[in-house]
Amino acid sequence: MTVRLEGKPVAEAIDQATRSAVRSLPAGEPAPCLASVHRGVDSPFRYYLKRQAKAAAALGISFRDEPLGPEDGPQELIERLAALDRDAGVHAVLLEHPLPPPFDFYRAVATLRPAKDVDGVGTANLGRLVAQMPVQVPAVALAAVEIARHYRLPIEGERVVVLGRSETVGLPLALLLAGKGIGLNATVTVVHSKTRDLKAALANARTIFSCMGRAGMLTREVVPEGSCIVDVGVSTVPDPARPGSSKTTGDADFESLDGWAAGVTPVPGGVGPVTVAKLMAATLEAQRLLRTEEGG
Amino acid sequence: MTVRLEGKPVAEAIDQATRSAVRSLPAGEPAPCLASVHRGVDSPFRYYLKRQAKAAAALGISFRDEPLGPEDGPQELIERLAALDRDAGVHAVLLEHPLPPPFDFYRAVATLRPAKDVDGVGTANLGRLVAQMPVQVPAVALAAVEIARHYRLPIEGERVVVLGRSETVGLPLALLLAGKGIGLNATVTVVHSKTRDLKAALANARTIFSCMGRAGMLTREVVPEGSCIVDVGVSTVPDPARPGSSKTTGDADFESLDGWAAGVTPVPGGVGPVTVAKLMAATLEAQRLLRTEEGG
Repeated sequence: MTVRLEGKPVAEAIDQATRSAVRSLPAGEPAPCLASVHRGVDSPFRYYLKRQAKAAAALGISFRDEPLGPEDGPQELIERLAALDRDAGVHAVLLEHPLPPPFDFYRAVATLRPAKDVDGVGTANLGRLVAQMPVQVPAVALAAVEIARHYRLPIEGERVVVLGRSETVGLPLALLLAGKGIGLNATVTVVHSKTRDLKAALANARTIFSCMGRAGMLTREVVPEGSCIVDVGVSTVPDPARPGSSKTTGDADFESLDGWAAGVTPVPGGVGPVTVAKLMAATLEAQRLLRTEEGG
Repeated sequence: MTVRLEGKPVAEAIDQATRSAVRSLPAGEPAPCLASVHRGVDSPFRYYLKRQAKAAAALGISFRDEPLGPEDGPQELIERLAALDRDAGVHAVLLEHPLPPPFDFYRAVATLRPAKDVDGVGTANLGRLVAQMPVQVPAVALAAVEIARHYRLPIEGERVVVLGRSETVGLPLALLLAGKGIGLNATVTVVHSKTRDLKAALANARTIFSCMGRAGMLTREVVPEGSCIVDVGVSTVPDPARPGSSKTTGDADFESLDGWAAGVTPVPGGVGPVTVAKLMAATLEAQRLLRTEEGG
């Protein structure tokens, strides 16, 4: 039997700590405030935006929806972020990514001080992650690690594979897993589209973090028997049960892996809800950092 | 027969390009200038310092030796670096590392703009390396990659191991090897002191980059037959040939690996001279970057 490693109990434990910390803020301290900046168009980010707003409301965090106007370009984006960085009422800023040209995501996000770059995707935060002294870390990487810890998946000193090498997901996750100071001391292999032999690269892996976004690519033909999969991939595919409509699915082919893998996080319902919970916790943390010199 | 992968021809090719570029600088353009900041005490850095001065002189690069005084602390170090960052006559600054407490290496090096942080060890540069758009990259990581390329060691799409996860050597090298944009598309495993089974982690590796600084740790008992080793480790050990004196050696046990490994870079004479050549090339590059907006 393959265990479904559900995200819900992990997210609930994080949310409980966040809610309690928000309630315990000193009198006169405002609620932590997250601003979410996006193009205001129909994109996968809109779905994530709704979840952010709902989670914030449930935790006593204030949420500011900050859509760009249809005429806004790279300069307007930078001005918006600079204004939010100056705004003492805003503690954390999330910027939609990826952003299509002519937007320059890294140039834009560099406008934020490290503490306010709540998703830790700016180069200042990524560099501090390499140096094992992060300020903010991508929420999805933290969520993948948290779910692995919750279910006590083999990590410390063990052979772990990260599938995918994006600068906002795969590489930060690999740095977290391999690190010493703040890390998990895993022996990490980064596998990607140019890897010659996927099956050989996965052989002997105890835990696999998959961040490819390729629906159902992980089957029992390539995954070692008895391993655990933390599925970070999200794809939208046609729903065979409802012709004409679509559904969300992960990199793991659950049917193929059932009875083969030791455990798999579902998509939806695995890493996703934990990511939202981690983003809310990071918003609270941003407020704390901004109170101290470190975040200034 | 195990091939000794000598650094000399690799360093000479880099130096030739640097010397020719320095000679071709437009009339009125000063020679590139490297400033080397250190504690001025007896440390392993002093040996490296002499090699910097000699290499710079041979290439037409000006070199400024910038020792701290015996009374200088963290604040004086930051002031010195800030002055060098402002100084239009200095293009590249190298700061001794590691630095013992009370010095804070990362805080100090953050005083430099990314182009002048010639060894790419500040968090601004490390973050840009994660995002695959580096300004400066640690010279030792570039040197290890350059020597591997020169001898056409198996890298692209192949299984490669980086032994060691320091933020200034192992992790930047792993990011270079695994990367797509500027990287080498290798399937990289980062192995370190907490790795449970070293031999299993090295199994099937085609090329091993060893940055442990543990003399002779790589023997045929752990290294796969036919693999190549780029030895970045440097240790000082007693010299059995000259009782009472010491010698420099690498992580690879050359005697054990002879006839087993396909190739090994010697220590001394392997990655070392290529690192100095790469540092000089990065000094020239810093001057170019400072001429453009990117470095400003």
